[in-house]
Amino acid sequence: MSANSFGKLLTVTTFGESHGPAIGCIIDGCPPGIAIAPEDFRADLSRRATGRSRFVSQRRESDEVEILSGVHGGRTTGTPIALLIRNTDARSKDYAQVSQTFRPGHADYTYWHKYGLRDPRGGGRSSARETTVRVAAAVIAKRWLAGLGIRVQGWISAIGPCVPGRIEFSAIEDNPLFWPDPDTLPEVEAFLDGLRKSGDSIGARVSVVAEGVPVGLGEPLYGKLDGDLASALMGINAVKAVEIGDGVEVIRQRGSEHRDELTPAGFLSNHAGGILGGISSGQPILAHVAIKPTSSILVPGRSVNLAGEPVEVVTRGRHDPCVGIRAVPIVEAMLALVLMDHLLRHRAQCGDVPAMSPRVPAPPFQPESA
Amino acid sequence: MSANSFGKLLTVTTFGESHGPAIGCIIDGCPPGIAIAPEDFRADLSRRATGRSRFVSQRRESDEVEILSGVHGGRTTGTPIALLIRNTDARSKDYAQVSQTFRPGHADYTYWHKYGLRDPRGGGRSSARETTVRVAAAVIAKRWLAGLGIRVQGWISAIGPCVPGRIEFSAIEDNPLFWPDPDTLPEVEAFLDGLRKSGDSIGARVSVVAEGVPVGLGEPLYGKLDGDLASALMGINAVKAVEIGDGVEVIRQRGSEHRDELTPAGFLSNHAGGILGGISSGQPILAHVAIKPTSSILVPGRSVNLAGEPVEVVTRGRHDPCVGIRAVPIVEAMLALVLMDHLLRHRAQCGDVPAMSPRVPAPPFQPESA
Amino acid sequence: MSANSFGKLLTVTTFGESHGPAIGCIIDGCPPGIAIAPEDFRADLSRRATGRSRFVSQRRESDEVEILSGVHGGRTTGTPIALLIRNTDARSKDYAQVSQTFRPGHADYTYWHKYGLRDPRGGGRSSARETTVRVAAAVIAKRWLAGLGIRVQGWISAIGPCVPGRIEFSAIEDNPLFWPDPDTLPEVEAFLDGLRKSGDSIGARVSVVAEGVPVGLGEPLYGKLDGDLASALMGINAVKAVEIGDGVEVIRQRGSEHRDELTPAGFLSNHAGGILGGISSGQPILAHVAIKPTSSILVPGRSVNLAGEPVEVVTRGRHDPCVGIRAVPIVEAMLALVLMDHLLRHRAQCGDVPAMSPRVPAPPFQPESA
Amino acid sequence: MSANSFGKLLTVTTFGESHGPAIGCIIDGCPPGIAIAPEDFRADLSRRATGRSRFVSQRRESDEVEILSGVHGGRTTGTPIALLIRNTDARSKDYAQVSQTFRPGHADYTYWHKYGLRDPRGGGRSSARETTVRVAAAVIAKRWLAGLGIRVQGWISAIGPCVPGRIEFSAIEDNPLFWPDPDTLPEVEAFLDGLRKSGDSIGARVSVVAEGVPVGLGEPLYGKLDGDLASALMGINAVKAVEIGDGVEVIRQRGSEHRDELTPAGFLSNHAGGILGGISSGQPILAHVAIKPTSSILVPGRSVNLAGEPVEVVTRGRHDPCVGIRAVPIVEAMLALVLMDHLLRHRAQCGDVPAMSPRVPAPPFQPESA
Repeated sequence: MSANSFGKLLTVTTFGESHGPAIGCIIDGCPPGIAIAPEDFRADLSRRATGRSRFVSQRRESDEVEILSGVHGGRTTGTPIALLIRNTDARSKDYAQVSQTFRPGHADYTYWHKYGLRDPRGGGRSSARETTVRVAAAVIAKRWLAGLGIRVQGWISAIGPCVPGRIEFSAIEDNPLFWPDPDTLPEVEAFLDGLRKSGDSIGARVSVVAEGVPVGLGEPLYGKLDGDLASALMGINAVKAVEIGDGVEVIRQRGSEHRDELTPAGFLSNHAGGILGGISSGQPILAHVAIKPTSSILVPGRSVNLAGEPVEVVTRGRHDPCVGIRAVPIVEAMLALVLMDHLLRHRAQCGDVPAMSPRVPAPPFQPESA
Repeated sequence: MSANSFGKLLTVTTFGESHGPAIGCIIDGCPPGIAIAPEDFRADLSRRATGRSRFVSQRRESDEVEILSGVHGGRTTGTPIALLIRNTDARSKDYAQVSQTFRPGHADYTYWHKYGLRDPRGGGRSSARETTVRVAAAVIAKRWLAGLGIRVQGWISAIGPCVPGRIEFSAIEDNPLFWPDPDTLPEVEAFLDGLRKSGDSIGARVSVVAEGVPVGLGEPLYGKLDGDLASALMGINAVKAVEIGDGVEVIRQRGSEHRDELTPAGFLSNHAGGILGGISSGQPILAHVAIKPTSSILVPGRSVNLAGEPVEVVTRGRHDPCVGIRAVPIVEAMLALVLMDHLLRHRAQCGDVPAMSPRVPAPPFQPESA
Repeated sequence: MSANSFGKLLTVTTFGESHGPAIGCIIDGCPPGIAIAPEDFRADLSRRATGRSRFVSQRRESDEVEILSGVHGGRTTGTPIALLIRNTDARSKDYAQVSQTFRPGHADYTYWHKYGLRDPRGGGRSSARETTVRVAAAVIAKRWLAGLGIRVQGWISAIGPCVPGRIEFSAIEDNPLFWPDPDTLPEVEAFLDGLRKSGDSIGARVSVVAEGVPVGLGEPLYGKLDGDLASALMGINAVKAVEIGDGVEVIRQRGSEHRDELTPAGFLSNHAGGILGGISSGQPILAHVAIKPTSSILVPGRSVNLAGEPVEVVTRGRHDPCVGIRAVPIVEAMLALVLMDHLLRHRAQCGDVPAMSPRVPAPPFQPESA
Repeated sequence: MSANSFGKLLTVTTFGESHGPAIGCIIDGCPPGIAIAPEDFRADLSRRATGRSRFVSQRRESDEVEILSGVHGGRTTGTPIALLIRNTDARSKDYAQVSQTFRPGHADYTYWHKYGLRDPRGGGRSSARETTVRVAAAVIAKRWLAGLGIRVQGWISAIGPCVPGRIEFSAIEDNPLFWPDPDTLPEVEAFLDGLRKSGDSIGARVSVVAEGVPVGLGEPLYGKLDGDLASALMGINAVKAVEIGDGVEVIRQRGSEHRDELTPAGFLSNHAGGILGGISSGQPILAHVAIKPTSSILVPGRSVNLAGEPVEVVTRGRHDPCVGIRAVPIVEAMLALVLMDHLLRHRAQCGDVPAMSPRVPAPPFQPESA
């Protein structure tokens, strides 16, 4: 199986480099009959796009999606769906210096040693540019999930030292930072402005919730829902940690506190983040990722060049002071794709299992407790 | 592909329930010629075993490994290696109550709804008993890795509020808690004794390092070394978070602090945990997992039974006050298996790539900074 | 994915050598709730067994199946099902000579060069002994298929120059040769007796039909039903050709003859063998394999030994004059497993597609025309 | 894993319909450093192309390959290679009638029932148009294999009743029929001319040989070289049988005749077609496929329409009287891709196995005996 594919039944295979002719993907295993058109991709791609605020890279890509196959008469046909996005604003000259130097914190050094050569333009394959097609593929998944009453929403739950005081879902899309707390938004913007002036960058935490997920998704033991989700999220550029539910907090919790008690009226808490034994419990699925600060900054750093000599590196291209911000729709995309894959997998093996009772009610996601 | 398999080229497929006749696995893709005998499994299985201290479950399994295939004349033949371990101390009567009740925090409820029936004896398939065969399979991987100069070592880096003051590798195996700091060991033991008396349980953090890993392992973008590792580690029972390198700390770091600078004399830090762009950098691979407190405790908890009626649950079986302790060899096992798989994958695609220079020296793992 | 696994959603992974301690398999992805007990395996294993007539190898194996996991209370639980069969009549001394010699027509030479060592006892992993577990795994598949009205039946359609004059389904199981024509049975037996006296062996053709298969199974283009079936059948020991429907006869057919016309009353023929464009048509699935004569014969043959010197080889172990005979239940097994896998795959992707009309009736299989 | 992917380590995923905007593929797992340019695809694509003689479909496609990713500075980089071919001569109006009718012998009926809708233009996904990208992908594989001294060559070994009197490799590419016998070429052309006038079509047999393949390729038991080859070849449009070596002839052979004896001077025959126990023997790999006559003919045929009413079908589009002819480069392509995949797989598992002796010489392929 291709190392550039993910998903077992809903399989997405991507291609493309940051400054090559195009990026794109093939989505296979998609059920037939889903309505989809090129314009349906615009909203989410725009959420991920560069250039939409002063806090992200100023590269401007039109991100027009061409559907090359798998859709006929406006509906998916069950055959592979190929999506193509041309690269239009690739300024390769910005990266001339890069080809002779290993930028610290980047994949330059590791690609060089693995493959013996690399495409240095804009980070090549290791660029976050590729995540555009993940978001595009997930547009189809989100639509299909919506038809089943499943909704995925992400937000920024920390930028450096700043954490939101509360989570207001309706506020998230009102600002380019996906910041869920209008009260502390000015403070975060001021922090980022200061950072930008200093030429440095900062890490972030992205949270995501899926509501309406039925009980039963996940294939124990090596296709667990949280195991697959961990792989999908850790594989996003710059992610260094994945947490499910209470995540690292469980280290300090007692069993009497952590276990989510059940009553006929419903679960009493959701420390588990909606997954027990690798299988969804019917409670909201909650996950978080830690995203490192980009290493492409104006602050000079030490490195070596291809000749092994010490050099000073200053990255002058178009970069994000906080790459975590644009990661929000990407994290949503990966969760949506994993959920759709698992819904198909569950239908395959357990399509005949009758609905069991008792079904313990799952309270809706409580943003304030996240 | 089986959902009870992991690994692409070195593939381990496991079977077995906690209280069924046996557990075991098939290891496929293993290179021929590796010397292996039944007694080679004892050391690591004993590290994972129950019953070896008062801090872990008192179930006593002999864990004798029978090699059913794939080894001839004491060496692997390249054909599938089947390992069989009989269950001998399965007291199913302890679990009679369980069959009518969903234990909070366990997989009872989710297995029931997914499959419409379940094997309730000792948690069935969802029991940590299965991890025994992961450790067994990894004995072969560790041996093969050792031949390449690669060594994997895990330890406990937190139990509830207790954190080691320092990390002394030589001390880890001297106590049944895999605690790396002899000075604070009595304090941790006292904490666990108190916990045991209260009938409660506690979370833990397990850390693991692999030293000697060459640069170049990992298949970007969906077979990244950290992506595969995240799946392997999150799939271990009770794990709720996976961190690579600095993990969740990166949220608060600046780019000028996080990026690991390179000089001709070597990398100046290892915040990345040895992985850049999904590919190993030649620095030590460092990962951590957060393990939740077991929900099987003497403290009464609320739940519902199969009839949907409210019940009180008290778990009287043999359980661990801190399941994280026994997870240390399991975490090592998953890392070893992922590394061996990726070494084979790398050899397949890049076996012809010449060694590139400059190779930046990687300082050895600095336990004190972990 | 393990090279000793087959099936995408219903995945069977096998292990074991001819003269090792045991053979067995892990069946994963099986729907929960299927009733299965150890004695259910006996009938089909006995059909495949050695020693049941003078025309097959005289090795006598009890072939008792132990269910190690995945079944609770007599029903599959959805977790991996492990089956274990101990080898009891392995006379390794018969094969002492083999370890120093490459038997012509066997896998000795190729295993030696691939792996640099081999288990020479009874052919090791390359022995047809392994097919026992395929038949065992398929017992579960056949039962599940029967519940959907699908029936699989194989027979011998040629042994050397002998071909049945007609195909009488009721006669197949009445003789140990799976010969469908009682009239020509004595002639075939006489042919085989003569062959046995001469110490030589003969090839055979096995045919198989599946009736009741619904329209729609198969994933174009690289998971086609015929593509997967070809792999499954060619992978059986000694198979050198796989035909679907009219098979090699199509070379001489015209389009006006081959295409199976449709009328409201039904298809008018079934040259295609029930598969069009890689997808089942609702007509009976018909396939054939050509099985080579075993190379283990009393007629002396030339070969070389490990030192590269010329040697004469005479195989004195227990072998079949016509290995094709015992292949009948194996061919059935592979077809049953492929069908079950594809039914699950189809349910995953197209579980929501409504039944379309018109549905063209498919006449039942016409044995006389096979 | 995508059902539109093939290959385990060298994975090709294809997309596209006959009359959609484009067809293409993603090739993943390719070693870095292979020189490749857009013009390198022309020769083989032209061999497969329509319109190059009066014996094949008159559709004229430019088949210009655009490399979208995975190549930098004229060399493969190890990242996914995306190839795009635009459809330029798609006359969808030819197929207006098709959308209301199930053409006998085509995938119309089965796609309709599987997916509940279909793209009827030119057969949509089930069209042989897709095979263009298989040939394109194999251009890279053939080049890599050539560097290892491996050469793949296909030819037509039967068209209906016509069989070549001899096989002259140098003659194959001198005529548009890939006919290896100049003496009987006029006879075949006359046969095809007569067929074309009658508006009918004919089946064919395609043979292929790979020379220079080292001993040791193939992963027993479910990744056997012949098993994977059977799947790859049966998956080609219109193929109804796959034979390895002597194929269906083995049914009538005796063991003393079939087994390929070994002497220090070499193998004495190659009835096995270069594969023993699923592993290459070092002898030439020889395979054959039987290709059915196309069902798209001028001879009227019976069928039903979407309303279930009987209709008469006459196919007036551009079709091939013998689709087998253009299959020659496709069969070569599938063999080349399977071989490259298995070379990488073998290097992964057995890269450390030393060259074993004795190595029995393999005589070159004897065309006259094929």
